[in-house]
Amino acid sequence: MADRYPPTARTRIKRLPKRAQYDREAVHAVLDAGVICHVGYVIDEQPYVTPTLYWRHGERLYWHGSSASRMLRHLKQGVRACVTVSHFDGFVLARSGFHHSVNYRSVMALGEASLVPEEDKLAVLEDFVERLLPGRWPELRPPTRQEVKATTVLWMDLDEVSAKIRTGQPIDDEEDYALPIWAGVLPVRTTVGAPQPDPRLNPGTPLPAYLRDAGAWPAWLAAAPR
Amino acid sequence: MADRYPPTARTRIKRLPKRAQYDREAVHAVLDAGVICHVGYVIDEQPYVTPTLYWRHGERLYWHGSSASRMLRHLKQGVRACVTVSHFDGFVLARSGFHHSVNYRSVMALGEASLVPEEDKLAVLEDFVERLLPGRWPELRPPTRQEVKATTVLWMDLDEVSAKIRTGQPIDDEEDYALPIWAGVLPVRTTVGAPQPDPRLNPGTPLPAYLRDAGAWPAWLAAAPR
Repeated sequence: MADRYPPTARTRIKRLPKRAQYDREAVHAVLDAGVICHVGYVIDEQPYVTPTLYWRHGERLYWHGSSASRMLRHLKQGVRACVTVSHFDGFVLARSGFHHSVNYRSVMALGEASLVPEEDKLAVLEDFVERLLPGRWPELRPPTRQEVKATTVLWMDLDEVSAKIRTGQPIDDEEDYALPIWAGVLPVRTTVGAPQPDPRLNPGTPLPAYLRDAGAWPAWLAAAPR
Repeated sequence: MADRYPPTARTRIKRLPKRAQYDREAVHAVLDAGVICHVGYVIDEQPYVTPTLYWRHGERLYWHGSSASRMLRHLKQGVRACVTVSHFDGFVLARSGFHHSVNYRSVMALGEASLVPEEDKLAVLEDFVERLLPGRWPELRPPTRQEVKATTVLWMDLDEVSAKIRTGQPIDDEEDYALPIWAGVLPVRTTVGAPQPDPRLNPGTPLPAYLRDAGAWPAWLAAAPR
């Protein structure tokens, strides 16, 4: 397998091509740092953008939801989709308004979604939960057949994909560096706070090991390159 | 002006309608808590979703970028667009996989974008900067005519709009509450860190007042309802 996604006319980044990345490793790193994607699809010529959870397994992106969801009912027909994942890492304050920017990591994947067949759904959902919270799946009340049926899972091949990444300080016009204007980066971070137990928790239920170390979470949640 | 956006066939939320909100105030609160939106548009039947900065002024959403941007060149023709803003507020861990969820606040706005005319652009861009960093615009090196020309600003009326919000603890099947399975919320927060000055800062340039109080930032950055 090639170590990069061949850029196409639709994924080749023309604006600021120095920010573009097509390496599998770079694309995977952006995808694996997030949990929410924005799925674009078209119904009756109107584009819609729906935020939803996703996960990656190898060269496939997965997302899921209620079988009654308009988004999923539409996409499972194999129509064209765009899945975008973005992490906002900071404001970049330059000496002129024009050179202000943001630091970010984003991936855009184009393709057609396919339906995970009924017999594979349970294993795919287990994979999803175990990626987020290793050890949680076997603790849960097992899914009923009706619950699995009421859940639709879609996947899309990572095939027509590009990443776009900006890091670092502002790039100002050379003559502006002498101006006494504050310039720099305001870093933005996404973090997970302390677990908030359900007031109806069965008394004596301990906090599971996978929730004890909040410090481990940023590994998969929008951790910006330091 | 009515205090809610009349739901249409395209914005009426059918799945989990109890999470839907059409009140202007609720929609504005979600929009004003964010800085990054995801814009959906269609070129040659392919949907694209592009993350970009946005701001709200009254009943208009604005976004901007390079005049060379494919997204902006396409949308300025008045084609159909979808602007989605979403804040991810936490993981909701239930006693069954099926009832796991996320806490979030999102807005989907449908419409057609229009171009801000050349003569209005400067005032609109000033409004954008001053909303984010009150006091910064007059400190900056003023924009050149060429820079303004190289910037495209679009707006869209808030007209066909819905918000979807989930808060709080999991809702489990009644018989599952007795199970000794940990359930609760893992809150997710987006925060702004300490300013990182550009190493090329003109020595002696003080940190501006609007950057001194990092605690003020969450007011407009994805601050979840507590």
